[in-house]
Amino acid sequence: MKKINWEEVSMTIISYAGMAKSNAVLAIGEAENGAFEKADSLLKEADEMMIVAEKAHMDIIVQEAQGVQHDFKVLFMHAEDQMLTTQTLMILVQKFINLYKKLK
Amino acid sequence: MKKINWEEVSMTIISYAGMAKSNAVLAIGEAENGAFEKADSLLKEADEMMIVAEKAHMDIIVQEAQGVQHDFKVLFMHAEDQMLTTQTLMILVQKFINLYKKLK
Amino acid sequence: MKKINWEEVSMTIISYAGMAKSNAVLAIGEAENGAFEKADSLLKEADEMMIVAEKAHMDIIVQEAQGVQHDFKVLFMHAEDQMLTTQTLMILVQKFINLYKKLK
Repeated sequence: MKKINWEEVSMTIISYAGMAKSNAVLAIGEAENGAFEKADSLLKEADEMMIVAEKAHMDIIVQEAQGVQHDFKVLFMHAEDQMLTTQTLMILVQKFINLYKKLK
Repeated sequence: MKKINWEEVSMTIISYAGMAKSNAVLAIGEAENGAFEKADSLLKEADEMMIVAEKAHMDIIVQEAQGVQHDFKVLFMHAEDQMLTTQTLMILVQKFINLYKKLK
Repeated sequence: MKKINWEEVSMTIISYAGMAKSNAVLAIGEAENGAFEKADSLLKEADEMMIVAEKAHMDIIVQEAQGVQHDFKVLFMHAEDQMLTTQTLMILVQKFINLYKKLK
């Protein structure tokens, strides 16, 4: 089984989840200003970025399930955290957009 | 001191925190539609699910504090992340429910 | 390179991120009641607490980047999670405050 390049995997997750997080924050800002088309489009882009991050992450989980004992890396832990907090943020940003659409 | 079954503990946390997360997302949906009784009830159920997840998690923390050096498992890290992001989500879902009640 | 005192670092992060999380939750409560000055001030305090937590966390990441292989500690994982979920919470609390100001 091939050795994982932790730094590469972690940086992929951190980059893509980080871009998705930025997009999500910008999307609420657009919704606050009533720019719903821009908000929806930013969140849609964020969804696509998260697919890349989640794929990289899933590969690790699958390897472990197949019996690979991974070394502990703080950087990967940070990557995983970035991914899951971004998922949560995106759920709630969508709810903010819905709300601002209703209030309009 | 008994050996931890990481997979079992992780899957318990992932299952219960996962169900709580789903409930929380459904609860905002109900609040968006003005179904506040359903929203409150879904969030109350989520609270009960989280008690199971948090108990499983606390056992691990307590063992470590007693001197047990745990192996690193990505699955457990994922479980812990699911738990903490769900707690955060639930706090904010409650705030969305409060807000929709006010707006009604 | 000096040995990390994991418990100390973890407790610093847990304490400061925990206080910031409490402040953030209180801040939404104040915004719900229209007490915006109090809400803003609680969130500003939370920002300052997070600077302490993020500094402690960054020291660990930097050491790892310099080649230190850290031991896995569940307590530190929990600390990291507390920090990242609090960051996410604070972003959204700010958005709730903005919303309540608009609704006023």
